[in-house]
Amino acid sequence: MTTLLSALCGDDDIDALLADDAQVRAMLAFETALAEASAACGWIEAGAAAAIGDAIAGFVPDWPALQTGMARDGVVVPALIGQLRTRLAEPHAAALHKGATSQDVIDTALMLQLAKVFDIYEGRLTDLLDALDRLAANHGDAALMAHTRMQVALPTRWGAKLMSWSEPLARHLRALAALRPSLLVVQLGGPVGDRGSFEGHGDTIAADMARRLDLGMATPWQTQRDPIMALGALLTQISGSLGKIGADVALLAQNEVAALRLEGGGGSSAMKHKSNPVKAELLVALARYNAGLSGTLAQAQVHEYERSGAAWTLEWLVLPPMLKATGASLRLALALFEQLRID
Amino acid sequence: MTTLLSALCGDDDIDALLADDAQVRAMLAFETALAEASAACGWIEAGAAAAIGDAIAGFVPDWPALQTGMARDGVVVPALIGQLRTRLAEPHAAALHKGATSQDVIDTALMLQLAKVFDIYEGRLTDLLDALDRLAANHGDAALMAHTRMQVALPTRWGAKLMSWSEPLARHLRALAALRPSLLVVQLGGPVGDRGSFEGHGDTIAADMARRLDLGMATPWQTQRDPIMALGALLTQISGSLGKIGADVALLAQNEVAALRLEGGGGSSAMKHKSNPVKAELLVALARYNAGLSGTLAQAQVHEYERSGAAWTLEWLVLPPMLKATGASLRLALALFEQLRID
Amino acid sequence: MTTLLSALCGDDDIDALLADDAQVRAMLAFETALAEASAACGWIEAGAAAAIGDAIAGFVPDWPALQTGMARDGVVVPALIGQLRTRLAEPHAAALHKGATSQDVIDTALMLQLAKVFDIYEGRLTDLLDALDRLAANHGDAALMAHTRMQVALPTRWGAKLMSWSEPLARHLRALAALRPSLLVVQLGGPVGDRGSFEGHGDTIAADMARRLDLGMATPWQTQRDPIMALGALLTQISGSLGKIGADVALLAQNEVAALRLEGGGGSSAMKHKSNPVKAELLVALARYNAGLSGTLAQAQVHEYERSGAAWTLEWLVLPPMLKATGASLRLALALFEQLRID
Amino acid sequence: MTTLLSALCGDDDIDALLADDAQVRAMLAFETALAEASAACGWIEAGAAAAIGDAIAGFVPDWPALQTGMARDGVVVPALIGQLRTRLAEPHAAALHKGATSQDVIDTALMLQLAKVFDIYEGRLTDLLDALDRLAANHGDAALMAHTRMQVALPTRWGAKLMSWSEPLARHLRALAALRPSLLVVQLGGPVGDRGSFEGHGDTIAADMARRLDLGMATPWQTQRDPIMALGALLTQISGSLGKIGADVALLAQNEVAALRLEGGGGSSAMKHKSNPVKAELLVALARYNAGLSGTLAQAQVHEYERSGAAWTLEWLVLPPMLKATGASLRLALALFEQLRID
Repeated sequence: MTTLLSALCGDDDIDALLADDAQVRAMLAFETALAEASAACGWIEAGAAAAIGDAIAGFVPDWPALQTGMARDGVVVPALIGQLRTRLAEPHAAALHKGATSQDVIDTALMLQLAKVFDIYEGRLTDLLDALDRLAANHGDAALMAHTRMQVALPTRWGAKLMSWSEPLARHLRALAALRPSLLVVQLGGPVGDRGSFEGHGDTIAADMARRLDLGMATPWQTQRDPIMALGALLTQISGSLGKIGADVALLAQNEVAALRLEGGGGSSAMKHKSNPVKAELLVALARYNAGLSGTLAQAQVHEYERSGAAWTLEWLVLPPMLKATGASLRLALALFEQLRID
Repeated sequence: MTTLLSALCGDDDIDALLADDAQVRAMLAFETALAEASAACGWIEAGAAAAIGDAIAGFVPDWPALQTGMARDGVVVPALIGQLRTRLAEPHAAALHKGATSQDVIDTALMLQLAKVFDIYEGRLTDLLDALDRLAANHGDAALMAHTRMQVALPTRWGAKLMSWSEPLARHLRALAALRPSLLVVQLGGPVGDRGSFEGHGDTIAADMARRLDLGMATPWQTQRDPIMALGALLTQISGSLGKIGADVALLAQNEVAALRLEGGGGSSAMKHKSNPVKAELLVALARYNAGLSGTLAQAQVHEYERSGAAWTLEWLVLPPMLKATGASLRLALALFEQLRID
Repeated sequence: MTTLLSALCGDDDIDALLADDAQVRAMLAFETALAEASAACGWIEAGAAAAIGDAIAGFVPDWPALQTGMARDGVVVPALIGQLRTRLAEPHAAALHKGATSQDVIDTALMLQLAKVFDIYEGRLTDLLDALDRLAANHGDAALMAHTRMQVALPTRWGAKLMSWSEPLARHLRALAALRPSLLVVQLGGPVGDRGSFEGHGDTIAADMARRLDLGMATPWQTQRDPIMALGALLTQISGSLGKIGADVALLAQNEVAALRLEGGGGSSAMKHKSNPVKAELLVALARYNAGLSGTLAQAQVHEYERSGAAWTLEWLVLPPMLKATGASLRLALALFEQLRID
Repeated sequence: MTTLLSALCGDDDIDALLADDAQVRAMLAFETALAEASAACGWIEAGAAAAIGDAIAGFVPDWPALQTGMARDGVVVPALIGQLRTRLAEPHAAALHKGATSQDVIDTALMLQLAKVFDIYEGRLTDLLDALDRLAANHGDAALMAHTRMQVALPTRWGAKLMSWSEPLARHLRALAALRPSLLVVQLGGPVGDRGSFEGHGDTIAADMARRLDLGMATPWQTQRDPIMALGALLTQISGSLGKIGADVALLAQNEVAALRLEGGGGSSAMKHKSNPVKAELLVALARYNAGLSGTLAQAQVHEYERSGAAWTLEWLVLPPMLKATGASLRLALALFEQLRID
């Protein structure tokens, strides 16, 4: 649902990938892959996997009941599995979700969602690098007065400035690619994370599920949240690099400095002559927002025992806004470069 | 819109008070009060105020156009005023929003919204204190083993524990009341915050508006965001005190400690015997969430020049989630006390 | 010990008040007051209190042994009391620290230290308000171009700008005074915080100690850390308001804007013509530093059981740097106003 | 200087590597390498490089004057170069620091210091992994009751727990190695970061300096702070993974759970029977401290223009405490494993 604030600094594309229905679809993909992999190694019957596949294929969630279950259990999975089980006759009902625990479903579903989010980020970063390449081709030799510590320093060229903007973005694009194999992995541990519930089939099932879901293989990592923190850090670096660009643009667009112009800046309700560097300011705001959130996300590494409801829920509160803010930063930076005029 | 996550740890009541339509209603109340106060002192014609009142009375926003304006201008006010103006014939159109600027509208509207949020908080805090009083009356003399630094210390009584939970909440209830007069004040400064645009009528109009809107009077404070930070700090203290209660409950409800029981704890998808302290964990998660957000909000005090789009937008990103998390903490604490059994 | 970094943005005065020897002196004042108050109500012998007073009067700590004790016990008090006890013959040794626990000593000592820190803050805030009054008297009517959203807005006067700088500082000065009675209170709870160890004399002793130490009286608050958070929030507001001034000064001192000048700005190793707004930048840096730290401090509200070593230590890590950064901000703002020239 | 707090949760080894004299030594290494590289390519005379080498070899800083310069200029380099220049006769004085700017010196010096800090981290991580291997060899098959969401779950084995502790640490060890080439690089940009001041010799000199200083080569990165943020994120992950271990140990060492014992836990001033899990609690405190600081550090990515005094100083305030806290976490975790007994 678009709100006034999300129209300003949200991201509809990322929103859609993180919405409840996208999450539930990813959870169902987990259950399908689990059933298929469990049947493939003979741990459940092939007929059970087929029945589960059929049940999932036509499944329409009872959303209010899922919300009620979520509020009661702290996770949606018990209610979701309960709804699915009503569509399965015995003996197949017991094969559904067999050996797995809520966290297996939720963490793996997140990875499936993140893979698509990464696609969007990579596309936008590529577009930004292209836009910067074009600016450099057209204006790289243009003179620019450099400023250090908020004072006029010495003349430089726009090329140096544009390189200082693009190098970090190129780094982030490479970092996203590098993060895929270590982050986007299957979670399969069972109730206490040791795969004991899979009666010896756990490693085989996990590897097969990873293949089916196009994720990496991993040992259970349910209490090891450092890859999530590494993601948060990269998101913060992306929005931070864009925030630096935003700060530069707002400074360079000052009337007194006038090193660049923004076509179609924001209007004021009281001062008709204003052309406000709205998108540049938003990049700064989103950079500071993500920076703060990354520090909050990092609190969730202190994960008690074999599963911390408190720490895990904290991730759910913080990571989606960071993913959206990062997407919005990239979207707004692209729009800002459209507006940018170097004379 | 209720989502799975908001069903778990959101707050529908606070959501409604902070929703777009509630904000726009508060903005229209600002414009009405401005027109009435401007007419009362003779700065605009009485007929203009009446026409503005009529235009606002029947006004239905064009929401998509407001979103477009928000994205373009960084604030919704120019688009909103534009839509209202089409409902006003000259000479009255110029009287609408006369002298004011976007920030006057938005900051004052926030105050009107906050007044209602405070009502909810105060009601819930009062209910929590009542619940704690009842627990103390029934169980205050019951023995409880105290723990310090995560080790068994010496016997104490439940009364001491319950007092340590209720004293901060009583403090927060008083602090909310104390914050009302210093926080819930009118914002009226005009384009650059010096009331110059009101041609000498600024103080009179501001005082009259404050009376009409049931807010406190104040000099323009558009760049002075410390009262917003004080609010953020109080929200964090509220959710923090509840997070301490949540941490205690989760520890005391451990199977091995068993100093209390929770009726109707959360279920597990894999372990039917579990009764998880979901609401206690959520109180911890929300406390840590708000704590982190308060540090991010505080970054917005560095407010450049006469109005910083970057710093102000950062407030918009951070404060509403904090208000919701605080409301949710209070809601969940009440529900947790319903579940709590001391044997 | 002054370091390069502390020479830049530290505060020798606050450092001295928070140093180990100042803390130990405050702890000894606690033990003296405890002995005297315990004797006054007859809980220990008058002779014991006298002996304790004598032992403390001539006491020189064995610092390396205190450090060893600190590292072992997580608090310095057991080692400190151990050292003091060797100076007391029986039967008086048992009267030392009788009924009290480490947290009583440490929290109360902090309050004694904070009282002196507040004196410094109040003095500097008063000086800053005086400096701003002088600037307003001399330049209040001078024209100044206002800027909103980083763009030229409309002309205003320096008086409006200076008022926007001074109003928050006046508020903070009042807030410090208001915080004294609620924050600067005695801590006396005994091992588990219920005063049970004082065998019925706890309230009397606490009240008498408060009087002797010039602190407020309070029920035990060892797990109720919200007043510490309120302090952190106020520190953040102070440095934040000064950060806003710093941001304004750095912007107004831009060569292209030149609305003010700084006499004796910082030099550059490479560009001899530069006059960098070093102190203005530091105010921004310290504001952001304290803002972030306040969010970290707030994590310490989640205080497990009757005493959390983890949460309490987190306070020790965060609060002193905040107190120093706040002092440094005030010091630097005063120096900045000395440099500031409005032409 | 060891303080009570640093005795508890500081790190003397890291302190020494980050102390003023270590920093100045690294700065002098930069100037030596710059002179040698500048001579090697013929940009300055060989005699000048030799004279600079001699001047640096016997140089003893005037520390109070360096502190005064630091306070005035915001960086120590102008004062340091000034002191060195007095030891050089013309024509060689002008060859010192030729083409360079303060940031080149300071950022490169930091890299030289960090290389040594990494050595310590890697050594301690290796020792921790060895300690965990030994625990696994001795106790991997021992039964352990797993807990999820703070409730008893199902039996598992110590081996699974120990693997969940060691896998992140192994990851961090690899991440440190991977970070070396991208982080530990030379900074050489000159006054405005475009190497223009080196009159065409910049790339050659930078590459030669990198070789002489055993650092990686890089284009100027003075405004690109994302590698610093990546470092902060890794530090946070290290202390966070150790904080998770600390939380587990404190929970498992609860008297009521008693899944492990700590030999030589901390003593209490009031309760002689206590054995407090001090080091485990410290790991939690340091994890939360670093988590919060990482969010503050990330604010420094918004770096205005070609050099932001505000953002850069914020790094100086935040990064050293993070480096020390990380070192202390590793030190304390090693000590904790010494205490840990599984029966």
